[in-house]
Amino acid sequence: MSLFNKITIIGVGLIGSSLARGIRRAGLAETITIADKNEAYLARAEELDLANNYTADTLMAVADADLVILATPLGQMGKVATEMGAGLKQGAIVTDVGSVKKSVLTALAPHIPDGVHVVPGHPVAGTEQSGPDAGYADLFKDRWAILTPSETEDIAAVEAVKKFWEGLGSNVELMDAEHHDLVLAITSHVPHLIAYNIVGTASDLEAVTENEVIKYSAGGFRDFTRIAASDPTMWRDVFLNNKDAVLEMLGRFSEDLTALQRAIRWGDGDALHDLFSHTRNIRRGIIDAGQDSDAVDFGRPHGEDDKD
Amino acid sequence: MSLFNKITIIGVGLIGSSLARGIRRAGLAETITIADKNEAYLARAEELDLANNYTADTLMAVADADLVILATPLGQMGKVATEMGAGLKQGAIVTDVGSVKKSVLTALAPHIPDGVHVVPGHPVAGTEQSGPDAGYADLFKDRWAILTPSETEDIAAVEAVKKFWEGLGSNVELMDAEHHDLVLAITSHVPHLIAYNIVGTASDLEAVTENEVIKYSAGGFRDFTRIAASDPTMWRDVFLNNKDAVLEMLGRFSEDLTALQRAIRWGDGDALHDLFSHTRNIRRGIIDAGQDSDAVDFGRPHGEDDKD
Repeated sequence: MSLFNKITIIGVGLIGSSLARGIRRAGLAETITIADKNEAYLARAEELDLANNYTADTLMAVADADLVILATPLGQMGKVATEMGAGLKQGAIVTDVGSVKKSVLTALAPHIPDGVHVVPGHPVAGTEQSGPDAGYADLFKDRWAILTPSETEDIAAVEAVKKFWEGLGSNVELMDAEHHDLVLAITSHVPHLIAYNIVGTASDLEAVTENEVIKYSAGGFRDFTRIAASDPTMWRDVFLNNKDAVLEMLGRFSEDLTALQRAIRWGDGDALHDLFSHTRNIRRGIIDAGQDSDAVDFGRPHGEDDKD
Repeated sequence: MSLFNKITIIGVGLIGSSLARGIRRAGLAETITIADKNEAYLARAEELDLANNYTADTLMAVADADLVILATPLGQMGKVATEMGAGLKQGAIVTDVGSVKKSVLTALAPHIPDGVHVVPGHPVAGTEQSGPDAGYADLFKDRWAILTPSETEDIAAVEAVKKFWEGLGSNVELMDAEHHDLVLAITSHVPHLIAYNIVGTASDLEAVTENEVIKYSAGGFRDFTRIAASDPTMWRDVFLNNKDAVLEMLGRFSEDLTALQRAIRWGDGDALHDLFSHTRNIRRGIIDAGQDSDAVDFGRPHGEDDKD
């Protein structure tokens, strides 16, 4: 018997399509329904045979669903909740995959009927690609899924969502929504912002051409461009919905950067060397924790040696 | 016949050891001499059989050399030049691999005898690892090597160094030293600085633990930690030696970041979306130019799908 009878996924981008693939492979549902307002995405999901049913109608999509997963950009979640609220059955569980968690609760709460459980979630996984073709079943494997239910939420509902993510290969952590938003601001949101920013800066210079930036990007710049190729709508919504935490972490970042700038201006080599030595340890910790590959240079191909 | 009779490499870290391997494989020299003051590095180079001769004595190392390549951190180059100057033979070519070019010329010039050619160079290639074991022959393949000779330098000497890099698989570009330093400030030096900086910021927070930063690093942070694991001494010297260009580019970066911060504070979603859309194109350009892999997520392994 599957964990859920019917799972409805709303939004079939990178995450939604990865969910559908993973659910099917792990046998976590008897039937999967995919809803998306984007006709091209919906048609493509059907071509890829990701689910049992496909519809652009959110209300119809959630009928009889035991688990409803919102996988739209954050800015759409309030609207989706309005559309689907009346169709949710008693005892259903609503979850989501949004990268910000306090604002999701605020957006959903007014539209979710009594007797329906809300267990917000966030799989800390993704790539720089978007759309139904970009998804794959292993996206969540060995990554963390963070759940941020309210303290009064039904324990059985939380446990069911935990089992769901574990079924996809994830490790699950429960966290307060506010703390989640602060942690992700520094581990994800500000890194994306500064990656977008330096790519923007580099493309706006007069003294250095865009062609030169591209040619000599192997000196470090290219690593930032991967992140800066992430979905613009998703990331706009992240920053609009996690304003306070992002501004706080950005303030810290800028303060530290100003100190580094001063060390460079005054030739304080010791201050630079101290920081540059310290940061190596964090990399080691991430590799030891299995959150990144220890292949040199991310395992990028390096000519003939790799063709063996 | 080889391109050079004797090549001397001074400094056998990631770059020096990659050079030795590449020179040997491509047959660019009859004999290779490696000099390094670091006894462990020198012994390891010999164990790895990277060259024909090994010495800690810079002056002896350059005797009869046709090409001398300085592959030490930038801060050592003046000292090395002092030590080797008197041993250089007439007609020899001195080059280097430093990431900053104006300061190298200044450091070398007083110590290089008349009749010896100076053709500063910079291979835009590297990984986050250091030391003789980290090197490999294909490091420079399909990457750019930038040469910054003075306008009065002997054309035949410049041509010989150009052929040398082409022999290692690189594309070669000639450039004014000052322009080089500006281009690399934005494509390499500032990216490294902000990577070091955000890793430092993340490890100094009270509200978020280092363990949390590591656990949830797959949200973007981990990409920065690779760059922030680069050699501390090399990078200290880069910032001390390219102060003006780095401070200029850092000023641009901070100005743009302040504008983004303001857009977040005032909820200007259009400004965010515009930038985030624009930056995708640069990524495409880098992949088209062969300067990065188009494998999703840098081709990082993603569980079972990759074991096929």
